[in-house]
Amino acid sequence: MTKWVYTFGDGTAEGSASDRNLLGGKGANLAEMSAQGLPVPPGFTISTELCTAYYENDRQYPDDLTSQVNKAVSYIESKIGAQFGSVDNPLLVSVRSGARASMPGMMDTVLNLGLNDQTVEALANNSNNPRFAYDSYRRFIQMYSDVVLGVDHYNFEEILELKKEDKNIDLDTDLDADDLKDLVKQYKEKVEEQLGKPFPQDVQEQLWGAISAVFSSWMNERAITYRKMYDIPESWGTAVNVQAMVFGNMGNDCATGVAFTRDPSTGEKTFFGEYLINAQGEDVVAGIRTPQQVTIEGKERQGSELPAMEESMPQVYQELVETYKKLEAHYRDMQDIEFTVQNNKLWMLQTRNGKRTAPAAIKIAVDMVGEGLISKEEAITRIEPDSLDQLLHPTLDPNAEKQVITRGLPASPGAATGMVVFSADDAESYATKGDKVMLVRLETSPEDIHGMHAAQGILTARGGMTSHAAVVARGMGRACVSGAGNISISQENKTLTVGNVTIKEGEYITINGSTGEVMLGAVPMIEPNLSGDFETVMQWADEIRSLNVRTNAETPEDVATARKFGAEGIGLCRTEHMFFDAERITAIREMIVAENKHGRKKAIDKLLPFQREDFRQIFDIMDGLPVTIRLLDPPLHEFLPHTEEDMQSVAKAANVSVSDIKKRAIALKEENPMLGHRGCRLGISYPEIYQMQARAIIEAAVEVVASGKKVLPEIMVPLVMNVKELEIIKKIINSEAETVFAEKNSRVEYLVGTMIELPRAALQAGNIAKEAEFFSFGTNDLTQTTMGISRDDSASFIGDYIGQQILEKDPFVVLDQDGVGELIKIAAERGRKTRPDIKMGICGEHGGNPASIEFCHNVGLNYVSCSPYRVPIARLAAAHSAIKGGTKLKKAA
Amino acid sequence: MTKWVYTFGDGTAEGSASDRNLLGGKGANLAEMSAQGLPVPPGFTISTELCTAYYENDRQYPDDLTSQVNKAVSYIESKIGAQFGSVDNPLLVSVRSGARASMPGMMDTVLNLGLNDQTVEALANNSNNPRFAYDSYRRFIQMYSDVVLGVDHYNFEEILELKKEDKNIDLDTDLDADDLKDLVKQYKEKVEEQLGKPFPQDVQEQLWGAISAVFSSWMNERAITYRKMYDIPESWGTAVNVQAMVFGNMGNDCATGVAFTRDPSTGEKTFFGEYLINAQGEDVVAGIRTPQQVTIEGKERQGSELPAMEESMPQVYQELVETYKKLEAHYRDMQDIEFTVQNNKLWMLQTRNGKRTAPAAIKIAVDMVGEGLISKEEAITRIEPDSLDQLLHPTLDPNAEKQVITRGLPASPGAATGMVVFSADDAESYATKGDKVMLVRLETSPEDIHGMHAAQGILTARGGMTSHAAVVARGMGRACVSGAGNISISQENKTLTVGNVTIKEGEYITINGSTGEVMLGAVPMIEPNLSGDFETVMQWADEIRSLNVRTNAETPEDVATARKFGAEGIGLCRTEHMFFDAERITAIREMIVAENKHGRKKAIDKLLPFQREDFRQIFDIMDGLPVTIRLLDPPLHEFLPHTEEDMQSVAKAANVSVSDIKKRAIALKEENPMLGHRGCRLGISYPEIYQMQARAIIEAAVEVVASGKKVLPEIMVPLVMNVKELEIIKKIINSEAETVFAEKNSRVEYLVGTMIELPRAALQAGNIAKEAEFFSFGTNDLTQTTMGISRDDSASFIGDYIGQQILEKDPFVVLDQDGVGELIKIAAERGRKTRPDIKMGICGEHGGNPASIEFCHNVGLNYVSCSPYRVPIARLAAAHSAIKGGTKLKKAA
Repeated sequence: MTKWVYTFGDGTAEGSASDRNLLGGKGANLAEMSAQGLPVPPGFTISTELCTAYYENDRQYPDDLTSQVNKAVSYIESKIGAQFGSVDNPLLVSVRSGARASMPGMMDTVLNLGLNDQTVEALANNSNNPRFAYDSYRRFIQMYSDVVLGVDHYNFEEILELKKEDKNIDLDTDLDADDLKDLVKQYKEKVEEQLGKPFPQDVQEQLWGAISAVFSSWMNERAITYRKMYDIPESWGTAVNVQAMVFGNMGNDCATGVAFTRDPSTGEKTFFGEYLINAQGEDVVAGIRTPQQVTIEGKERQGSELPAMEESMPQVYQELVETYKKLEAHYRDMQDIEFTVQNNKLWMLQTRNGKRTAPAAIKIAVDMVGEGLISKEEAITRIEPDSLDQLLHPTLDPNAEKQVITRGLPASPGAATGMVVFSADDAESYATKGDKVMLVRLETSPEDIHGMHAAQGILTARGGMTSHAAVVARGMGRACVSGAGNISISQENKTLTVGNVTIKEGEYITINGSTGEVMLGAVPMIEPNLSGDFETVMQWADEIRSLNVRTNAETPEDVATARKFGAEGIGLCRTEHMFFDAERITAIREMIVAENKHGRKKAIDKLLPFQREDFRQIFDIMDGLPVTIRLLDPPLHEFLPHTEEDMQSVAKAANVSVSDIKKRAIALKEENPMLGHRGCRLGISYPEIYQMQARAIIEAAVEVVASGKKVLPEIMVPLVMNVKELEIIKKIINSEAETVFAEKNSRVEYLVGTMIELPRAALQAGNIAKEAEFFSFGTNDLTQTTMGISRDDSASFIGDYIGQQILEKDPFVVLDQDGVGELIKIAAERGRKTRPDIKMGICGEHGGNPASIEFCHNVGLNYVSCSPYRVPIARLAAAHSAIKGGTKLKKAA
Repeated sequence: MTKWVYTFGDGTAEGSASDRNLLGGKGANLAEMSAQGLPVPPGFTISTELCTAYYENDRQYPDDLTSQVNKAVSYIESKIGAQFGSVDNPLLVSVRSGARASMPGMMDTVLNLGLNDQTVEALANNSNNPRFAYDSYRRFIQMYSDVVLGVDHYNFEEILELKKEDKNIDLDTDLDADDLKDLVKQYKEKVEEQLGKPFPQDVQEQLWGAISAVFSSWMNERAITYRKMYDIPESWGTAVNVQAMVFGNMGNDCATGVAFTRDPSTGEKTFFGEYLINAQGEDVVAGIRTPQQVTIEGKERQGSELPAMEESMPQVYQELVETYKKLEAHYRDMQDIEFTVQNNKLWMLQTRNGKRTAPAAIKIAVDMVGEGLISKEEAITRIEPDSLDQLLHPTLDPNAEKQVITRGLPASPGAATGMVVFSADDAESYATKGDKVMLVRLETSPEDIHGMHAAQGILTARGGMTSHAAVVARGMGRACVSGAGNISISQENKTLTVGNVTIKEGEYITINGSTGEVMLGAVPMIEPNLSGDFETVMQWADEIRSLNVRTNAETPEDVATARKFGAEGIGLCRTEHMFFDAERITAIREMIVAENKHGRKKAIDKLLPFQREDFRQIFDIMDGLPVTIRLLDPPLHEFLPHTEEDMQSVAKAANVSVSDIKKRAIALKEENPMLGHRGCRLGISYPEIYQMQARAIIEAAVEVVASGKKVLPEIMVPLVMNVKELEIIKKIINSEAETVFAEKNSRVEYLVGTMIELPRAALQAGNIAKEAEFFSFGTNDLTQTTMGISRDDSASFIGDYIGQQILEKDPFVVLDQDGVGELIKIAAERGRKTRPDIKMGICGEHGGNPASIEFCHNVGLNYVSCSPYRVPIARLAAAHSAIKGGTKLKKAA
């Protein structure tokens, strides 16, 4: 027989805090508190295993559940001395959900269960408080009808409001017992009217209805959405907690409240809570009555005139303070607690690790290390790497008003405000005048990069989390909302329309790249402030992690930002981003339309001084840190001119006709550019391009070395599928390098390696490693080819895929370990077999994703590389991975 | 010390026929003939290993070669009784190439080597024939200068012509000794004039020059091209054969000739050869003099008046007949022999297995089995599977004149003639009137299919061997030349231009899809004629092979053709090809522009009767054979209307505006459609499509079963990467099937399986096999994703890749075993582990490629599937694979 039901209460419990997976967070903590001797109302937990069994068995319960529940109800009855359904001394219970991970507001709760037309009378008699009894009953009817029976709560609120108008009173508390009795009557009539059958009077029916409602709510839309947002697997399931009711609403010696053992916003070590006299559970959080502060300090801080609990119930308050201190010491973390005071007796209803902001998480972790409560390793793992994003970008003032007009994908974090412009050129020219601009595009392309750089933020109508706009914006640290599908853009009129709101060029909007919100006007913002505690935690993280963290960057500005954030090298410097400047683009276009190698070489050589200077600056900033430079990667058509004017200027430069250029454009057009003539295929067809780039790199390196600095260039060949490609290109690079060394009479060390971004390259890694001195896993393209999904086109179906749980997550955000990951493992293994000391890293978007970083750590890669603004996140995630793997800080540190 | 040099002659030899890899074909056969006691002039062979060493060592010979060659020259001297370079009794030698595989005309030969101004006198004296001596010398100068020194032969032919004019004679043989002496003088002057140095008189210099010329010719352009055409690896190298000269030009008791032991065109068992009296080696093949027939039968057949060798040299002829019979019996294959008669003595210069046409190969193989000369297994392996293509398609009359205007890729074999048209609609309307048309397009798309079907052949300016045009044409058995890059097409003027030739609509052209030639006008053709011998061989092949052969087909016509060619089922029936008919396309377009599921369902249901009827006909023809039907695969935008007229008709049908349709088209546009919203992703997003298709399949199956036939439907889900996709879609299919079974009160068995065409699917095959009842490897897409190469775009660089030997072959023609093949192996292994009896096949273009078929056999797949016209090729290739694996026919068979 499977044990589905676990009891607790009266200083004992069948479970403990370590049973979180089985009993859910709430159930495990109730058991733990009970076992600790804290005052917990007796009750029982139906395990998460039952939830799983329930869904696996087509929403049927196992046969042996009823008897286990009945036995547990008897247990509560014996502890409380009341009987469930008794018309003399009725036991009332609460029924609550409790999943493994905290999912506040996502699941549903029923209080006062066990009341009916008979038991309410008994409650009135026994409490000698008919008002309380009928108030409890009407609350129960409303909550149960809403949650279990599907009768919307506004039905009841309407009746309540009418009643208050009728009686000409403002507060619920002003209703007397008869009013409430009448409300109960009306509520029951409403239920019968809505459902065609009466409100259930059988307490067993009530109990099972509530249990089923909790289990069903695991699959309600809010729950599914929340799980998606917070990466909670559906398979975890929820538990159900049934617990004897205690009442905060029996009179003025009763109260209910919630509190945090430290301030969840700032992390400050101060007891922080709210309570309400004569109120029940949800009243505090529901915001119907203004809650009062628990402490005098809190009351003063808020400038509140309502008495603090410390004043109104000093004894109970003292007990609460002792309890919270016990709990924090016991759990060794900041606790979020719920309590009820019934006739001056304190009852603990819940404790759990409190949610907190990123700054609070850092402060609490550092403080607790100082207090000797936790180790540095624990402190590190207490901080979610992704949460650091909040610290690195401006955020919207949480108190500011905002008018959200639409929502897209949270493509690049941070908030930004700017005047709307519709072209990259406009963005640049406004920005040059000192205006803050917001670039709004259908989608972006490499030609827009200067405009993206000039803008505060980018908003696109198309494209997913890894569209061009998203990837580039993250790299630059610009806020971006992408794929805001219901905006329409008129390039002609220079307007942006959402529904019936039209925004003209020059008008302000604000975007929140962390949530995807798009807002009218300029919303006030808070600038990031990296505190000393942040530095402390990052230092601990750096000491413990074994994975290096590099950055993907190519402009001196981004490179400098990345170093500031702690990057230990450049993992991906994309040379093509350097080609879009006005002076350069003409040369590259001239090369593309050239008729022969000679013409191509003449044009490409014009780019040499620019590229050399790019590299010189980067080497200079990175002084001695490795810099991985990827040779030209995108297909040539990405550089072609589109406007008549641009075509004419290229035609002139290249001494060809505009129609020649158009012909060339047609010839270069590709059905699937992602799988086309790009990467090292360009180097094979047009060796002069890679030759020029090799020369620029080596000349720059020689120059920087001459200035007294160190350089570590790593020349990276993209899209290799075959060792022969690398053989040929390595020869080109080495021969050009030797020429430069001879010319300059100076040498520098450099490595030649390859991207592993095609499945065939991963399989052939053993051969490729014969030539490659390093591997860099290009997981963007490797994901595209392994899964056969185009990043740019995935938006049309990836939603269906996540919705139908075919994919757990967007594979361009979180590395697909089963597919792409297996190829990485194969490549790492085969590569090392050929060349045991081969350096390996990852430079796709996944390099900044904590789950993917853990994978990289486990595979034994040397580094991850990510956009500058994710470097701290990656450092922390790498530390987490090391700690999970059992690494500890040296005591001395 | 490596042995580089192997001698032969006088009834002995250091090598034998089994040393073909080491000594080349010619050398091995010379050794073999010599060891057999046949009259072979003594000589030696420098091995192919030397060639490899030569190229590996930067065209330098190993040190020990000279001494080995000198020793071998002494050997010849001792056998012949003459000395190399002697002014009394000079030894003359021939120097010839001889690779492992026969490469006629590809390599170069030098005869009469050892002649100089002194030795020629000795030859004149000793032969008592100054005319012969000087004729030999002038031939030597011309040949050596051309081949070794690079002085083009026309220089000498010009001098010869002038001399003949001067003397007023027609035939070379009318020149006397003095004329020839004078020619030698002029030839030598010409050489000195061209090179600035005299013709070499040192016989050692001559010998080494010739040896080097042979080795160098291994890398000349003709040789490289030939190797590419016939898949001969460069690493094989060539051998050099140095052999004592025998002379067919010493007088009228001398002759030279070539012969085949059976007719190489028809395979008829008749001795077939040509000879020339008083002539040397190359005269017979050079076509300068009209050669005479060896046999009287041959003479009569040709209507020749020149005497046959059987008449002119009856004794030598008898000896030749005995020799050829000995050789054929010895080699157990039709031989191609070269001989020389010197003073009525027969010398054998070469024997090798003779090249033959496909019909001849079949007849000879079958005849030799009948004669007890070879086994059936040998007979099967004697026929190149690819050569069957010649038998299955019309071919150009080899005697017809043809004016080739350009050349594209040989995209789909066979020859075709037709009036040029420039649109699919025109093709159809002309064809309906009974005209034969040639569809000429920049490139084709699915919308052109009806026009391709109506046409005799297809010519495109763009696209590779696996472009849409090529793939579809091969499937339909239409001739196709694709990627004829230098044609330009004016849709407006309806003209096709190549250089200065312009062809208007309605004018005839002819294409040869087996060679890529495009010809003006209608060139006469020969229709295929499948003989009884063909049937016999195919029957033997069927008995021995273990791999089944299915076909890729969807029209009843193609399905019937495939059955005729022996297909054992359908491996790929592409349902989307069925959607382009006028009546259907509107419905599918209506579905695409529908705003919701209801609208989509309404539109898609219009297609149900069409699809059902398609499947009904196919099941009917395939009666009991398995039919794999792939659910809709291409992205929806492929079906969208392009013309204003089509858009209006869809708008009307779907009750939306034309601008809605344009918007939809923009929304559906994809950057990389190959990696886009296609395959089962459509089934996930729009389950109603697959639901309709499942219903059409099951309804058709039930109907055909009711008619008393058997059906074996295999429903195939494309582009799966994840078992969950298959789980969801299998549920849709099964539930629809159950509904139909209930409606019709009848059941049929069917399988649900998946394409394995993404690397992730291959890796996840173990999980996917939990749901999939069969795997079909879609090697086209699997190649695209594994290698990251778009079929449609590969033409721009695949040439560079093959040219630079990065790829040996086009991976879309011959399966990439190292990359794609490894994934297939992984998938097969993991799939079988989960489901040991899982059925597996391949349905990409590779299914008709013999090398790829061998791979499939070795991996243990159950079947290959290919286009109807390649079914016999696949059957034969499968038999080859089985024989290579050691399978033998039962003796009873």
